[in-house]
Amino acid sequence: MSIFHHTAAALAERFELTLRGDGDRRIDGVATLARAGASQLAFLANPRYRSQLAESSAGLVVMREDDAVGYAGDALIAKDPYAAFAKMAALFDHRPGFAPGVHPSAAIDPTAEVSAGASIAAFVSIGPRSRVDAGAFIGPGCVIGEDCVIGAGSELTARVTLVRRVRLGRRVLIHPGAVLGADGFGLAMEHGRWLKVPQLGGVAIGDDCEIGANTTIDRGALDDTVLEEDVRLDNQIQIGHNARIGAHTAMAGCSAVAGSATIGRYCLIGGGAGILGHLEVCDRVVVTAMSLVTSTIREPGEYSSGTPLMDNRSWRKSAARFKHLDALARDIGGRNKEPR
Amino acid sequence: MSIFHHTAAALAERFELTLRGDGDRRIDGVATLARAGASQLAFLANPRYRSQLAESSAGLVVMREDDAVGYAGDALIAKDPYAAFAKMAALFDHRPGFAPGVHPSAAIDPTAEVSAGASIAAFVSIGPRSRVDAGAFIGPGCVIGEDCVIGAGSELTARVTLVRRVRLGRRVLIHPGAVLGADGFGLAMEHGRWLKVPQLGGVAIGDDCEIGANTTIDRGALDDTVLEEDVRLDNQIQIGHNARIGAHTAMAGCSAVAGSATIGRYCLIGGGAGILGHLEVCDRVVVTAMSLVTSTIREPGEYSSGTPLMDNRSWRKSAARFKHLDALARDIGGRNKEPR
Amino acid sequence: MSIFHHTAAALAERFELTLRGDGDRRIDGVATLARAGASQLAFLANPRYRSQLAESSAGLVVMREDDAVGYAGDALIAKDPYAAFAKMAALFDHRPGFAPGVHPSAAIDPTAEVSAGASIAAFVSIGPRSRVDAGAFIGPGCVIGEDCVIGAGSELTARVTLVRRVRLGRRVLIHPGAVLGADGFGLAMEHGRWLKVPQLGGVAIGDDCEIGANTTIDRGALDDTVLEEDVRLDNQIQIGHNARIGAHTAMAGCSAVAGSATIGRYCLIGGGAGILGHLEVCDRVVVTAMSLVTSTIREPGEYSSGTPLMDNRSWRKSAARFKHLDALARDIGGRNKEPR
Repeated sequence: MSIFHHTAAALAERFELTLRGDGDRRIDGVATLARAGASQLAFLANPRYRSQLAESSAGLVVMREDDAVGYAGDALIAKDPYAAFAKMAALFDHRPGFAPGVHPSAAIDPTAEVSAGASIAAFVSIGPRSRVDAGAFIGPGCVIGEDCVIGAGSELTARVTLVRRVRLGRRVLIHPGAVLGADGFGLAMEHGRWLKVPQLGGVAIGDDCEIGANTTIDRGALDDTVLEEDVRLDNQIQIGHNARIGAHTAMAGCSAVAGSATIGRYCLIGGGAGILGHLEVCDRVVVTAMSLVTSTIREPGEYSSGTPLMDNRSWRKSAARFKHLDALARDIGGRNKEPR
Repeated sequence: MSIFHHTAAALAERFELTLRGDGDRRIDGVATLARAGASQLAFLANPRYRSQLAESSAGLVVMREDDAVGYAGDALIAKDPYAAFAKMAALFDHRPGFAPGVHPSAAIDPTAEVSAGASIAAFVSIGPRSRVDAGAFIGPGCVIGEDCVIGAGSELTARVTLVRRVRLGRRVLIHPGAVLGADGFGLAMEHGRWLKVPQLGGVAIGDDCEIGANTTIDRGALDDTVLEEDVRLDNQIQIGHNARIGAHTAMAGCSAVAGSATIGRYCLIGGGAGILGHLEVCDRVVVTAMSLVTSTIREPGEYSSGTPLMDNRSWRKSAARFKHLDALARDIGGRNKEPR
Repeated sequence: MSIFHHTAAALAERFELTLRGDGDRRIDGVATLARAGASQLAFLANPRYRSQLAESSAGLVVMREDDAVGYAGDALIAKDPYAAFAKMAALFDHRPGFAPGVHPSAAIDPTAEVSAGASIAAFVSIGPRSRVDAGAFIGPGCVIGEDCVIGAGSELTARVTLVRRVRLGRRVLIHPGAVLGADGFGLAMEHGRWLKVPQLGGVAIGDDCEIGANTTIDRGALDDTVLEEDVRLDNQIQIGHNARIGAHTAMAGCSAVAGSATIGRYCLIGGGAGILGHLEVCDRVVVTAMSLVTSTIREPGEYSSGTPLMDNRSWRKSAARFKHLDALARDIGGRNKEPR
């Protein structure tokens, strides 16, 4: 048995849940319904997995009250089982302890300010006038350029780059390979050659944001690129210069926002979706996976583009017809106007 | 003449091919049909390039028997010329020699186990309890977190990150910038704010997998994210938490698999294609480039979505009609029911 | 007041613009029309922002002659205000000074040649036979493999990887996380397993190219992958092996070019667009965002694929009809042939 354990009764009390079953049961880990054993906690949130409940060997399952009807095992009843599970699972997430201090290999500019309460790992480079606040963790191989701020309690897991003028709020979590504050893509054509437009702005990231692996957020051309608080970005997302993402918006992997677009609060952007530049998306908009937003959206709701998946043979036929859709429609329209 | 050379007869014997021509011809390199000279080997596999054969100055060409009919130059006859070429070309791929040992700059946790037969380059960081087996190469700037395993003969070219609980099989090849084992994108909304769901699983990569540059593979929420043996991933691919990719499946650049999706064996996923989460794709499915898989696929075959490329003016007309396709179809259907 | 300033008259003279207003006005920075103050320069290029001109507090605005009609403030008149602004803004882009020399932590192979006029930052690794010319800057954490060339005045901002046989021209700018020269995705299937095809070519990048953050450019299988001069790539772009991109072409974020495709000069490739392999795109082609190019394009012009964004409910109806578009069209076509 793990030395980290909690009784069922203790979990119920701590997270204000109703326990049905043995309060003395020791829980030392979390697992899926399919795999959990007698000392593990599982959850049932998605009705898709309801059939797994009867066969589960989980010692304890957190679920909604109506899902518990007829369930013979031990249960914790929650209004939102997934949120309750998330909080309980955190008890079993044994991360390496935080140890303040600077690894001897780190290359820190003499004008940078590193809090004595911050932790700087091996092969980290920190540039002029940048500041790292207490409780912040800068993982191995990170590069912080000039004039950056890493707020208290923020974590750059490993190999993150903040190029310049990037200001992170508190408790910001950035995964490996992310690049914040690189030059925006600003070009002017002159005499048949590209002229680079200087990118003089920065990046401002609000408190409690999370930024996925290999995601890129360019700094602004003149003003800043902005993520408001509690924005959640998955992996491989691209945010163009001067974009603004509203608080509590979440974007799934490989989606992209072009320059100077403004996204509202509480939006959900699906994987691989694209949002063109210089437009606005209002609050509470859902964009489904791989859809392309080409103009301003003023009404909350769900939006989509694309065509459904088909077997290739059928798809080729529909696709060929799409090319002549206008002629087809005019043909119908024309006949509609004919006397019949 | 290069000191690395092989005679035509030696190549034929070693790779069990039929030689037509001069067995003493010395081959010291490989090239395309268009560029190969008298001491170089070229190949003809794709009929698209057949017209280049007559004009080629290649000293030796590997091709199918029927392509060799009427060819006056020296030829190696193979059932699969591309595979035969791949094996012969490897003779001329002069990589820097493997030298076991640990670069003095490497930062290795005292609880990590590094085989004396492994090679650790400059600026590598290896975390607690991780293990590197014999013949493995960890290139410059790689970051290995805690509880990882790098199997025998595996190569992490440079700047690869294994965040935590990532287990690689044998002969796994990972290109620069790839990030394995970052947090899956697990969120629950509570009281208007995102709650992070702990990601307690790991990543398991089978023998002989290849993982492209800047590709990301998240670790599982509870169970592992899994690539079975001989899976081949191109660059900038995103694999969500708890996805499972079957053996011998190949995915082209910029494609993505969302969380908890299960992909079969011998699948071919085209560039930029997307596969939504919590669904299954059976064995031997081909998904064409930039298609989106939105539900379970139970039959092998080729699948597509999207519309064909058109000149923008025509496309705008078809696209405008697409918005009213249902009304158009109902209009036709209505008239179909009318007496004529 | 900033110590960096220029008078309006000096700007007009230096950039050959016509000044309307006070030649003695001191300009110490640049900003948007909405935010600029009395000592700042703004620009008006896009008619979309014309309404902001009247309300702007900018001390000086560069604009077209016809936009200046009736404008009471100080103005610089330019044929191309955006290009003129780009050049003037560069005066206010105070980057850290270039200091030649090699950081003591750098790991440089004894056979590499580093110019005394080059600047090598912390934690940089440079492999056998690679060469860094005068004025080049290799930022923190970059990895240069074997047989690479970094031309005079080029800048690798930070954490860039050149795997092997990558030759950069002069004044090439590469942003963090980019990977050039990784293995192309070459595979042959034999006896039910993938066989890796050796990638023996390199990468050649012309003068004045810019390559975005986390972009990947694979090296060629036999010949090189090529970017001609003045090609501009945004972030997270994927260029497959043996692709060739013509001079002055610009590609927006997350777009991709598959292996052996040839793109012409002065093309504009939209964000997220894809170009399949083994095809040609002629000069001056525009591909709109998230379109897929599946065959050779021989005529300059603008090309698109996809469907417009719709509310999800309407989209589902159109999408369902798309699956039966061929039957629908045949139904109409059939009736067209009927006597009416």
